[in-house]
Amino acid sequence: MRILGIEHVAVATADLDEPARIFGQLLGLSKQRTEDIPDQQVITDIYATGSGKIEFVKPTAPESPVSKYLAKQGAGIHHIAFLVDDLRAWLRHLRQQGVELIDQEPRTGAEGFLIAFIHPSSTAGILVELCQRP
Amino acid sequence: MRILGIEHVAVATADLDEPARIFGQLLGLSKQRTEDIPDQQVITDIYATGSGKIEFVKPTAPESPVSKYLAKQGAGIHHIAFLVDDLRAWLRHLRQQGVELIDQEPRTGAEGFLIAFIHPSSTAGILVELCQRP
Repeated sequence: MRILGIEHVAVATADLDEPARIFGQLLGLSKQRTEDIPDQQVITDIYATGSGKIEFVKPTAPESPVSKYLAKQGAGIHHIAFLVDDLRAWLRHLRQQGVELIDQEPRTGAEGFLIAFIHPSSTAGILVELCQRP
Repeated sequence: MRILGIEHVAVATADLDEPARIFGQLLGLSKQRTEDIPDQQVITDIYATGSGKIEFVKPTAPESPVSKYLAKQGAGIHHIAFLVDDLRAWLRHLRQQGVELIDQEPRTGAEGFLIAFIHPSSTAGILVELCQRP
């Protein structure tokens, strides 16, 4: 049971055009896909960097968690996602260690990954996602 | 001239013990080293993730840019660093494209990397570092 690497870094944004211009055209990152995630009320543009992805996440509804984040903090790096080998085993282990989880069980995220978020109160104030390849 | 991947994600923190407990012991990331960076008035604990690093950055003086960040925003993901092949060529290119740079020329960062920061006003509000292996 181990962490395999940084799968992606997610950036909250009110607009996907500016990131496309900067990270796509100017920095030359290749856009892999755009994905609508109704579950989270967001749409995300996913760019490959060569090692790890950067995902720009725009809310599609005022009730989206990302709308609340933008209203409170403005655009910024929203979370870091680590690729793991066995997400269910990780969630069991973390619960046993008293870690507060946002997701008790894996759910399906972008690109069909199994994902779960750890509560920032248990991870030094930053939002951490664990994810497993579909 | 291209981006090779996510080199690291840096987290601003007032304390290095909590990240050590969570990311080191609990999540099992291996700490590579602790580095004092007097230039930035910070000390940083660097963890390998398998692909990309996570660096916890603690200010060592009230005038450190990270002290100001913590006072304003609290602990959080401070910047994302992309590994590039030719940092000087990148900086020239970005300047020509009208991008506002914090560092006009490369300086030496942790682990001897050549580094330069782009101003967040040019990168959709997030702080981006470009770095090149020493």
